[in-house]
Amino acid sequence: MKNISLLGSTGSIGQSTLSVVEKFPDRFRVVSLAAGNNVDLLESQIRRFRPALVSVIDPSSAEKLKLRCADLNVRIFSGVEGMIRVAAAEEAHITVSAIVGTAGLVPTMAAISAGKDIALANKEVLVTAGELVMAQCRSLGVKIFPVDSEHSAIFQCLHAGADRDIRRLILTASGGPFRSYAAKDLARVTPGQALKHPNWSMGRKITIDSATLMNKGLEVIEARWLFDITHGKIKVLVHPQSIIHSMVEYQDGAIVAQLGMPDMKGPIAYALSYPERLEGVSPALDLASVGTLTFEEPDTDRFPCLAYAYKSLEAGGSMPAVLSAANEVAVKYFLDEKIGYPDIARTIIRTMDAHTPYPIKNVDDALKADLWARQEAERIIRYQVQGQGTRA
Amino acid sequence: MKNISLLGSTGSIGQSTLSVVEKFPDRFRVVSLAAGNNVDLLESQIRRFRPALVSVIDPSSAEKLKLRCADLNVRIFSGVEGMIRVAAAEEAHITVSAIVGTAGLVPTMAAISAGKDIALANKEVLVTAGELVMAQCRSLGVKIFPVDSEHSAIFQCLHAGADRDIRRLILTASGGPFRSYAAKDLARVTPGQALKHPNWSMGRKITIDSATLMNKGLEVIEARWLFDITHGKIKVLVHPQSIIHSMVEYQDGAIVAQLGMPDMKGPIAYALSYPERLEGVSPALDLASVGTLTFEEPDTDRFPCLAYAYKSLEAGGSMPAVLSAANEVAVKYFLDEKIGYPDIARTIIRTMDAHTPYPIKNVDDALKADLWARQEAERIIRYQVQGQGTRA
Repeated sequence: MKNISLLGSTGSIGQSTLSVVEKFPDRFRVVSLAAGNNVDLLESQIRRFRPALVSVIDPSSAEKLKLRCADLNVRIFSGVEGMIRVAAAEEAHITVSAIVGTAGLVPTMAAISAGKDIALANKEVLVTAGELVMAQCRSLGVKIFPVDSEHSAIFQCLHAGADRDIRRLILTASGGPFRSYAAKDLARVTPGQALKHPNWSMGRKITIDSATLMNKGLEVIEARWLFDITHGKIKVLVHPQSIIHSMVEYQDGAIVAQLGMPDMKGPIAYALSYPERLEGVSPALDLASVGTLTFEEPDTDRFPCLAYAYKSLEAGGSMPAVLSAANEVAVKYFLDEKIGYPDIARTIIRTMDAHTPYPIKNVDDALKADLWARQEAERIIRYQVQGQGTRA
Repeated sequence: MKNISLLGSTGSIGQSTLSVVEKFPDRFRVVSLAAGNNVDLLESQIRRFRPALVSVIDPSSAEKLKLRCADLNVRIFSGVEGMIRVAAAEEAHITVSAIVGTAGLVPTMAAISAGKDIALANKEVLVTAGELVMAQCRSLGVKIFPVDSEHSAIFQCLHAGADRDIRRLILTASGGPFRSYAAKDLARVTPGQALKHPNWSMGRKITIDSATLMNKGLEVIEARWLFDITHGKIKVLVHPQSIIHSMVEYQDGAIVAQLGMPDMKGPIAYALSYPERLEGVSPALDLASVGTLTFEEPDTDRFPCLAYAYKSLEAGGSMPAVLSAANEVAVKYFLDEKIGYPDIARTIIRTMDAHTPYPIKNVDDALKADLWARQEAERIIRYQVQGQGTRA
């Protein structure tokens, strides 16, 4: 029986994680849950999975939940302190880190410090503080299992060869809904169009990131730390069908790939049960029915966010944190229809240009870079992007 | 330094093996060579690689070679006895078994008995006596490394999961030059057409086997023994581009695949250097240039040889040996333009129908089944196939 602490239980990955737990009740037990403020869903999750410890963001949501769950044996907390309690819950063997955004960093570091293995779905943890996080994992013997389908694929493919024999990691990208749009048409796309991802059903923020290829850029940064490999050895390949989830190219010319139906339960279950593989987690892939797989180079002229991610790794230190935070702000403004689609990239590069990177020596350094970038991005959007009349 | 004994040095796989050895002179040394009767090529190989021990088929070729190589320190033998000496050469660490056909069985068994690891390119060794050969390997701690690109791919993909988690092995097949021919057009194809393989440059016999899908059938039988898996868990998938060399489907729904340019040096080098992968053995694969990969189910109505291979595994015992020997005879007659293309399958199934399978308890049992099937296939071709006037 593996005891699971789940950070972000009401989100897309959180719900898929619980459906994996539900399918294998003899293997997994949920001991703690952290969520935002979706009290209704969280209550039903508490009743179904009976965790001993729960946390929400707001104290008022915690009070509401306490009243509703008065008949249950569950301790309910709130805020960052509550998330940390959930992340480091004594009984947990593994902590699923599925809170979106930089908010995931502190509780994930708390779980690592408590010696919990990590099933990592949050991208920002490694994007903002990858070097620090991996060093902490190494020193405490903590294992990180990727939950992103791309990194899970690479993790699987890496079993076929030694690290010294790796030539490149090849991350596949669907190319998003605007893959074949001309540059001029990209200027006019709406949040509604961007939210229609061709293959994956995901949260709103990550779906926009898919449409800008920033999602892939963040994955490149993640891969750089997760697999301890320089960014020059990480390649992105557009593969619209999202059937090959990613690949490892070895120096003998062999490429090992992992394929499957687009479904997050596979990577989640693999992270939780590694090295075992659980029966029937993902729907079977029938390649003869799929028929055709295609591949093309990514176009960083039309999708500059991908190039900015590489640029941030070249700059090093706090720059990837700045890239990611500026992106988070810009995506929010885009979703609120306050800036246009090309303004996302524009906001990011201007924020990066205004930043002098410094080393991330602790979580505070990462949060400081994050906060600075958010403020700078907001400032840039108000005074430059909107001031230039893109949407004003 | 790994010492190599090479059986079949003048054939296609043999020459590729030597080019791998040539590329990595600090890693590999050729200590013994066996070939047919191509004395010219063999002499140049001896001068280049300086083996201590050589064997050819005919005593007259051996005498010729002795005269030509009188200035060299090489012992030259002939016949089965010579091949056995080469296969089991004292200094060899690994024996590359690349003699085509059932002729490879005796020297390969000799190498195994002498405790040599095997790089196996010969299909018939496992097709005719798989159970026996694998049992002998297990009892002597001998490892078999597959050289067929498909089995090498599966061997690589199997690193990504435990044996108990395998759902299926998926062998890819190019489909051969007649993949899209209608049944009526298949009746008229010539050896010249069949020898034009779309992706691989191989020997004549194996190229015809590709055109009938018998090659894939023999690979299914090989995989059954090599990976100790029932034939119900081995699937064939037509993939005309031959870029995905084969796959393993795990029970969680994940499929792990090995990809590369069609090139035999990759699998050969992997078998020789396992678990290491040598730099630049195969040309790099650029999937964006390839662009498109397609997949379809094999059609066993038009290509019945594949179904006969499964049928031979169901029958068990000596039946796969009979299938393979009957095929070898029929292909020879087809190459000599003495029977038509559909007569190959016809000859095989009639030979199988005339056979009552018995257990293969030793090499003699396998050779007996092989000899019986050859005689029966010849008889069937003379009195039934040709007698029916297909080409008569």
